[in-house]
Amino acid sequence: MKIEGRNSVTEALRSDTLTVNSLMAEKGSSSSIIALAREQGVKISYVDKSVLDKESVAGKHQGFIADVTDYLYCSVEDILSASEQPFVVVLDGINDPHNFGSIIRSCECAGVTGIIIGKNRQVAVTDTVSRCSAGAVSHVKIARVTNVNTAIKQLQSANVWVYALDMDGEEISKVNLKGSVALVVGGEGDGISKLTRELCDGVVSLKLNGKINSLNASVACGVAVYEVVRQRG
Amino acid sequence: MKIEGRNSVTEALRSDTLTVNSLMAEKGSSSSIIALAREQGVKISYVDKSVLDKESVAGKHQGFIADVTDYLYCSVEDILSASEQPFVVVLDGINDPHNFGSIIRSCECAGVTGIIIGKNRQVAVTDTVSRCSAGAVSHVKIARVTNVNTAIKQLQSANVWVYALDMDGEEISKVNLKGSVALVVGGEGDGISKLTRELCDGVVSLKLNGKINSLNASVACGVAVYEVVRQRG
Repeated sequence: MKIEGRNSVTEALRSDTLTVNSLMAEKGSSSSIIALAREQGVKISYVDKSVLDKESVAGKHQGFIADVTDYLYCSVEDILSASEQPFVVVLDGINDPHNFGSIIRSCECAGVTGIIIGKNRQVAVTDTVSRCSAGAVSHVKIARVTNVNTAIKQLQSANVWVYALDMDGEEISKVNLKGSVALVVGGEGDGISKLTRELCDGVVSLKLNGKINSLNASVACGVAVYEVVRQRG
Repeated sequence: MKIEGRNSVTEALRSDTLTVNSLMAEKGSSSSIIALAREQGVKISYVDKSVLDKESVAGKHQGFIADVTDYLYCSVEDILSASEQPFVVVLDGINDPHNFGSIIRSCECAGVTGIIIGKNRQVAVTDTVSRCSAGAVSHVKIARVTNVNTAIKQLQSANVWVYALDMDGEEISKVNLKGSVALVVGGEGDGISKLTRELCDGVVSLKLNGKINSLNASVACGVAVYEVVRQRG
């Protein structure tokens, strides 16, 4: 896949999970990106801006487009074994790539152990998602599973407490989230599926003091994830 | 301006600050929106779907497009006098309408007293902003000022503690935000201007545990605003 823009290309070059195959840079570029790519033996081709403009998907190449091997998903086991006290985010039906990208960015900043996504009603790691994550996609473990409910059971078997972030639950700051914990976040429209919600060990909610009855999914996820960060100190 | 879609039109009809001049509804509609509009003496015209499709800006009219008087900004005084312990969000250079809309939505949900925006480097309340706020724009006081720094001084004169949400500050959960408080949030690219940051009574930050050095502006604002909500109980 193609990754474009200074930040995203830099992050891809620094990533442990992505491999940059080649880099297209605007003629005359002398950026740290070039140095980084050279260090890694990445093939660099210097082209006219018009070529980059033509190759660009988002129109935001900023002089750099990298060809990167497709995202390598990890397994649920990989996430569980990456920390003695895993902090997992499970996404149940986020189908807006901007929201998914923003969630990946928040999770990376918060230091979550990994993200689990389903294959249904859920966008995969696409170029748009990668771009909206501001490069964070290169630094977070993401597992893609056929069945989110099976993954939740697997987390529970590993002594992870699984909480649904949904309406009509306990106020999140009043719930102890210090141990091994997973937060299940639903999509903008339908929220978390009924079966999934019932499977969770509890439901946590954000306080709504206004007239609007829900936050944007990526903001809600960010707030919840940072509440876990706060509690863990 | 035009407002479209079931939720946004409903919120506009319920709003104290917006006036719905007229409503275009798809022929054969029998929604609660029609009843609400009738109650308020709003002129309703029933048209073919093709007419709505043509008039629609976002392509998401869902059978309803309302013509609404432009957003009426309030004054800083209006915000200060609306609460004995005001909770204000000041935006310094948010120029992405999606982020601004999402911030308005989060602020409404959190119950902030009002939002102050500058006239420079800052998107106004446009149709896109209104749509991205999921109707929240109708329920939040927003003041638009020529100079953000003057507004900050005005808040300080009214005994409001003003904090910049920025890097290299004190971790937000360790700062007492229970009293009259304002959070200043900067734009995606440049952040808060140097002069504005220096004017603030303190700088608060979100913990960054990963390799990416910033959250999306609307997520960061959501997390910070909800930390104030948590502290205020």
